[in-house]
Amino acid sequence: MSGREHSARARPSRRGFLTAAGAGALGALTAGTVAGDLLSGATPAAADDALAGAQVPFHGLHQAGIVTPAQDRLLFATFDLTTNDRGDVVRLLQEWTRAARRMTAGAPVGSDNADLDAPPDDTGEAAGLGPASLTVTFGVGGSLFRKDGVDRYGLAARRPAALVDLPEFAGDVVDPARSDGDLAVQACADDPNVCFHAIRNLARIARGTAVLRWSQMGFGRTSSTDATQETPRNLMGFKDGTNNVVAEDTDALRSSVWVGAADDPAWMRDGSYMVVRRIRMLLEVWDRSTLADQQLTIGRTKTAGAPLGARREHDAVDLDATSDGDPVIPVDAHIRLAAPSEAEGARLLRRGYSFTDGIDPVTNQLDAGLFFVAFQRDPRTGFVRVQQNLATDALNEYIRHTGSGVFAIPPGTTPTGFVGETLLA
Amino acid sequence: MSGREHSARARPSRRGFLTAAGAGALGALTAGTVAGDLLSGATPAAADDALAGAQVPFHGLHQAGIVTPAQDRLLFATFDLTTNDRGDVVRLLQEWTRAARRMTAGAPVGSDNADLDAPPDDTGEAAGLGPASLTVTFGVGGSLFRKDGVDRYGLAARRPAALVDLPEFAGDVVDPARSDGDLAVQACADDPNVCFHAIRNLARIARGTAVLRWSQMGFGRTSSTDATQETPRNLMGFKDGTNNVVAEDTDALRSSVWVGAADDPAWMRDGSYMVVRRIRMLLEVWDRSTLADQQLTIGRTKTAGAPLGARREHDAVDLDATSDGDPVIPVDAHIRLAAPSEAEGARLLRRGYSFTDGIDPVTNQLDAGLFFVAFQRDPRTGFVRVQQNLATDALNEYIRHTGSGVFAIPPGTTPTGFVGETLLA
Repeated sequence: MSGREHSARARPSRRGFLTAAGAGALGALTAGTVAGDLLSGATPAAADDALAGAQVPFHGLHQAGIVTPAQDRLLFATFDLTTNDRGDVVRLLQEWTRAARRMTAGAPVGSDNADLDAPPDDTGEAAGLGPASLTVTFGVGGSLFRKDGVDRYGLAARRPAALVDLPEFAGDVVDPARSDGDLAVQACADDPNVCFHAIRNLARIARGTAVLRWSQMGFGRTSSTDATQETPRNLMGFKDGTNNVVAEDTDALRSSVWVGAADDPAWMRDGSYMVVRRIRMLLEVWDRSTLADQQLTIGRTKTAGAPLGARREHDAVDLDATSDGDPVIPVDAHIRLAAPSEAEGARLLRRGYSFTDGIDPVTNQLDAGLFFVAFQRDPRTGFVRVQQNLATDALNEYIRHTGSGVFAIPPGTTPTGFVGETLLA
Repeated sequence: MSGREHSARARPSRRGFLTAAGAGALGALTAGTVAGDLLSGATPAAADDALAGAQVPFHGLHQAGIVTPAQDRLLFATFDLTTNDRGDVVRLLQEWTRAARRMTAGAPVGSDNADLDAPPDDTGEAAGLGPASLTVTFGVGGSLFRKDGVDRYGLAARRPAALVDLPEFAGDVVDPARSDGDLAVQACADDPNVCFHAIRNLARIARGTAVLRWSQMGFGRTSSTDATQETPRNLMGFKDGTNNVVAEDTDALRSSVWVGAADDPAWMRDGSYMVVRRIRMLLEVWDRSTLADQQLTIGRTKTAGAPLGARREHDAVDLDATSDGDPVIPVDAHIRLAAPSEAEGARLLRRGYSFTDGIDPVTNQLDAGLFFVAFQRDPRTGFVRVQQNLATDALNEYIRHTGSGVFAIPPGTTPTGFVGETLLA
C-alpha cells in the first residue's frame, strides 16, 4: 500500500511523531534547529533523506520562505482585521506563530484532536503528508498602520517609510479585490494539500479577529532561489529570472534583500519587504507571435534560455553587443530593462508561481499567468525602480497586472517569541 | 544542477527523444505500446524507472485516465463548438488525438518549434518535464447531439439514451457557467504544469472551431483507482471512497464502468460515461462541528478512516450493527446511503480532486471543496441512482453542488485512429 505522495516508507506517521516528541517538546527547539533531527530520534523512518529534506526550520534570524529553496507550490492569502483592539492583533499573531511552528514541523494544529464533543483543533486533511517543506511567511500591509484615516492600533508612527503605497504603473488594471490586506501569509510547500491546510487553519484561528480578503494559488514555481535549483519555465515557455538573487549570494542578500542594522525602523531589522503582483498573461496573443518576436521580446532564446547572442542559459548577458549596428538584445527587451545595470543596481529576490483561475468569461481564454512575488530591502529602490524602468518593456503588450500588494515582512522569531513581536510587543 | 521536479538525470531531454524517434515514428506505435519502450532505445537515461513509470500508454481498448492509477493533479475543461460543419468537428478530434498522443509521450505538440518566422507549434512551458503520467481523456456532451433544438452535425439520432440530462437533485445550486459543454477534456498528471500545458495547447488547436467554456483545477487527488494506492483525505479531513472500484476489480469494471457489447449504441462499446460535479464544501460550518458529529455524518472515524464500529480503514462496513438498539452507522450517514447495497447495487469509479478557487466574496470563506469525477457504464443506474439515494444524506448540510456535467467517453483509439471515430467517421 504505497502511493506516490502517500508512501508510508518515506513519511513517519504523525501519530508516531507526536507520541515520541510530544507537543511540548516543540517548545524546546532552539532557533535554527531542524525539527527533523528531533523526528529522526523518534522513528527509524524519519532518517529517510526525503523526509529530512522536507522539513524547513521555522525559527531563525529571518523568516523562512524567502531564501528557502523555492518550493513547487504556493497558496498566498491576505486578511483584513475586524477588531479595533491591539491586544487582539497580538493574540492572533501569537496563535498564528504557534500554529505555523507546529505545521512546518508536520504536526497538527493544537493538541485537542480526539475529543468527540469538541471540534478538532486541526482540520485533518494534511494528516500523514509530512512537513512537505512547508514555510509560512507573515507580513503586514500599510492598512495595519492606518486605514481610512484611522490609526486603529496606535501603530501609525511605526510605519516604515519603505512600506510605500505603489504608484500606478503603465498598463496596470489592478483589481482592489485582489490587492492589499492588513496581514499577508505566504504558504509554500512541495505539496499543495499542505499549503491549503496551512491557510485554512490560520483562517480558522483568525475567526472573530480577521477575515480572508483574497487568495491566490500558484501551481508551479517559476523562480529558483538557490543555485542548486534548475531554472523553471513560465507560462510563456521561457526561462526567466536566471539572474535572480539566490541564497548563496550573501553579498546581494545583505545589500538588496535584508533590512540592515542602519535602516529605519529598528523593528524591521533582518526583515524584508514583499511585493506581489498578479500578472495575467494574454496567452492567446503571445501564442500567435512568431518565435523571433517572442525571443526578441524576452531577450533570450526559447529552448536553451540563453541571452540573445550567447549559447547557454548562464552565459553573461552582453547588453552592448551589436550586429550590423543594431543591439543584439533589443532596446525594449525584457532582460535589458530588468537588468540591474539598467535600473541603478536594483536587484530583487523573486519567488514567482504560475497560476490559472478558470476562464475569462469575456474572451473565453484561460485566466492564467504569473503570480510575481519579490523580496527586497526597500521597495522604493527595488520593485518600484525596476517596474518604472519596465514602462517601455516589449513584454507589456502581452501582460496585464491585475492584483497587487506590498507587505513588510518582520524578522524571524524564536521558540518562545512570535512573528511581529518587534512591532507589537 | 538538479531541482526536485526538473532533475536532468530522471528525464531525458525532449530534443534527444525527437532526434532518435522522430515525429513520424510515433505513428508506428501499435495499440497498447508504451512509448517509453521506444524512448528507452533512444537514450540511456530513458531506462530510468522513474521515467518509465511516468508514462501512460495513450492507445488501447479504453481511453486512459479512467482506471489509470489516479494522478495527483487535474485540469478539467469543457469546450463549446463554434462551427456548424461536422467536418470541422472530425478534424478537431483528429488534431486533438494527434496532440494528446505526443504530449502523453512527453513530446511537444507539432514538429515546428524552431522556425523563427512562425509561432511555435508548442507553447513550451512543459519542455523538460517529461510525460509526468499525463493522461488526456476526451468526452462529448449532450449538446453535441442537439443544442437549442438544432441538430448541427446530423448526430441527434446517435445520442446514447444513457447520456441523460441530470435531474435536479436536493440542494443543487448549479451554475450554468460551470456546467456542461459540447466537448470535455480531463487532463491528469503528476505535475500540474503538464496538465496546464495539455489543456492550453488543445485550446490553441481548437481556435476557430471551439472555445473554452469552463475549467477546473484539482490540486490533490481524493480517490484511489488502483489497489496499490493509499486512500487520500478530502478537505473534510476524511478518507472517503475506500470502497471505490479499482483497476484490479475486473468484474466490477465490466459490470459497472465499461459499456458492454450488448449495450446501445454500438459506437460507445468499451467507452464509459463521466459525471463531474463541483461540490463546494461549507468548511467553516464543518470545522465548527464536533468530532462526533463529523464522524456520524460520514460514518467513519476521522483519524483511522475505519467504518464506525470497526477498527481499520479496510474493515468491512457492517450496516446492520446496532448499539443499544440504534444503528452504529446512522441511517443518514454518508457511507450508508452511498453503499451499493443501499442503491440497488450501483457502483462508480471515482477520480475526485480537491479544489480551491479563491475567496467567496459574500462569506469571506475559502471557495473550496471536491471536484467529483465518476465513471460508470450508465449514469441512470450509476450516479443518478446514488445521488437520489443521497437526498437524505447528513453530509448535505455541509456541501452544495455548484457545477455539473455528463459526458459520453468514447472507447480508446489506435495509432492511426482518433478518439470519437466510432461516432463521427
